Amino acid sequence: VTVTPASPPADLAGLAARVQAGDKRALARVISWVENGDPRARLVLRVLRPTGGEARVIGLTGAPGAGKSTVTSALVRAFRARGNRVAVLAIDPSSPFTGGALLGDRVRMQEHATDDSVFIRSMSSRGQLGGLAAAAPQAIRALSAAGYEVILVETVGVGQGEVEIASAADTTVVIVVPGMGDVVQAAKAGILEVAAVLVVNKADRPDTQGTVRDLRAMVALASGEWRPPIVATTAITGEGIDELLGQLDRHEAWLDSSGERERRRLARTRDQVTAMALGLLARRLAVPDELAARVADGRCDPVEAAEELLAALGVRSG
Amino acid sequence: VTVTPASPPADLAGLAARVQAGDKRALARVISWVENGDPRARLVLRVLRPTGGEARVIGLTGAPGAGKSTVTSALVRAFRARGNRVAVLAIDPSSPFTGGALLGDRVRMQEHATDDSVFIRSMSSRGQLGGLAAAAPQAIRALSAAGYEVILVETVGVGQGEVEIASAADTTVVIVVPGMGDVVQAAKAGILEVAAVLVVNKADRPDTQGTVRDLRAMVALASGEWRPPIVATTAITGEGIDELLGQLDRHEAWLDSSGERERRRLARTRDQVTAMALGLLARRLAVPDELAARVADGRCDPVEAAEELLAALGVRSG
Repeated sequence: VTVTPASPPADLAGLAARVQAGDKRALARVISWVENGDPRARLVLRVLRPTGGEARVIGLTGAPGAGKSTVTSALVRAFRARGNRVAVLAIDPSSPFTGGALLGDRVRMQEHATDDSVFIRSMSSRGQLGGLAAAAPQAIRALSAAGYEVILVETVGVGQGEVEIASAADTTVVIVVPGMGDVVQAAKAGILEVAAVLVVNKADRPDTQGTVRDLRAMVALASGEWRPPIVATTAITGEGIDELLGQLDRHEAWLDSSGERERRRLARTRDQVTAMALGLLARRLAVPDELAARVADGRCDPVEAAEELLAALGVRSG
Repeated sequence: VTVTPASPPADLAGLAARVQAGDKRALARVISWVENGDPRARLVLRVLRPTGGEARVIGLTGAPGAGKSTVTSALVRAFRARGNRVAVLAIDPSSPFTGGALLGDRVRMQEHATDDSVFIRSMSSRGQLGGLAAAAPQAIRALSAAGYEVILVETVGVGQGEVEIASAADTTVVIVVPGMGDVVQAAKAGILEVAAVLVVNKADRPDTQGTVRDLRAMVALASGEWRPPIVATTAITGEGIDELLGQLDRHEAWLDSSGERERRRLARTRDQVTAMALGLLARRLAVPDELAARVADGRCDPVEAAEELLAALGVRSG
């Protein structure tokens, strides 16, 4: 059994207090620890509590080029106009090859860089125990404790990872551009069924109405109590952002009236704990050379080998 | 301990014999079992042995629209011209929303549909224990046992899943089109470092030379003993396919001379067994309501909860 101290060391308690007082540098350090899987993250997060209720977490996803950063930036502006403090967590898949340096699209956020009530932060998908499914909720918790009332979680690309990240938010906005390519990709990635609102951005392009129609047909096939509305936007001019905000508010109200918010909160926590447990276990699983050779040669089947491996760790067979 | 029979039931032994005799329907059935996680897959795979040595497995990946199906089809033609029996395993991420029905791009393969020495099969990414990292090697094993000498594994999109699938092949071809978009996406997804050969397809487009130059610069930054060559192709006309084939042969020879083939074989087996062990465990992990509520309320941190969960399964703390 891992023994953890009942309270963090004094310097970590001081850091936590600074985060809750709104110190951006302290907050950035905690998120870096989460990102890198630093054990100090746990100790700080343990004492961080949301000061003014839970933050509203909105995920934004879509293919590269769909205009996620522009929509995000327009939403920052809209929530700031309501007087909310807003955080943007931009999640990028990183690679040892590029070192995650390709964040050129973050320039869209420059207009908010000098606003003291806006916090913008990128987070990569390496290093954390349990991957982003486990890390995103921790970063969100830190942002919430720092007093950000709205947290926009922007992800890059569509795919399984994005579905995971989207599930860290109660409300997910899926952004496509006119033309079927993005719609097909989003559908393939299973992202349509997690959408709270579907946005067709760059709605000044031809074929916008065709894409809206295609999406409507796909949404009609989906099951589920919430049927995602489809909003056409031209985020660069702000066109359609008010309607998007209205639909987000409608979804927010539905989360409470339907009891869905509490269900999602528990489901998300279960996913986070499961991902962490698998992450902890993955670190302890070492396939011995001899066992790998037996499987590679076909003398042992991989499921048997997997059972053998689990048995060696003490896992009872199921 | 799971008790497995020493030999499969007679009907499964008969099915295995039919697979090894080249019966396509028997082969298709075994791959369906692998795809769906049917336990009979294990029993059949256990007795299937490659008849004429191990198959040559070549992975093909790249963004949608890069022309993967066209390059794959051109390679089928090239290997058929050498007299090889060729299998194509097209791996698509599937979604409960679409039911994996969006396989329109498979039409490129129509020209090979009547060739008895070519086997084409799609496989989706749901249902298998341990996901595609575990399932792809099993499907490859069945294809190899059925006498296919060359197995082309084509994946959709770039992302972590594709890196996993690519690692099921000894030789991976990464396909991009002229213009930086694909190159950046591929780099972000970490796919460049797994490439044996980089293909710039649709080389009749302007900017081909610029893209080749950018790729060369990125490759120069990569570490590793094998520096992937860059081949420009126009797969639709067959332009560049001979050069691609030559580079694939060169990589094939390097795999043996460097000892890399054996290293990869063992590393792949380790990944497969680890993925299966985690898959087995994921099925047994059930986060109790009470524990989820404690974490959601901040009364217990997720790592502690994960340790508690593992302890309940009998896993010794590490």
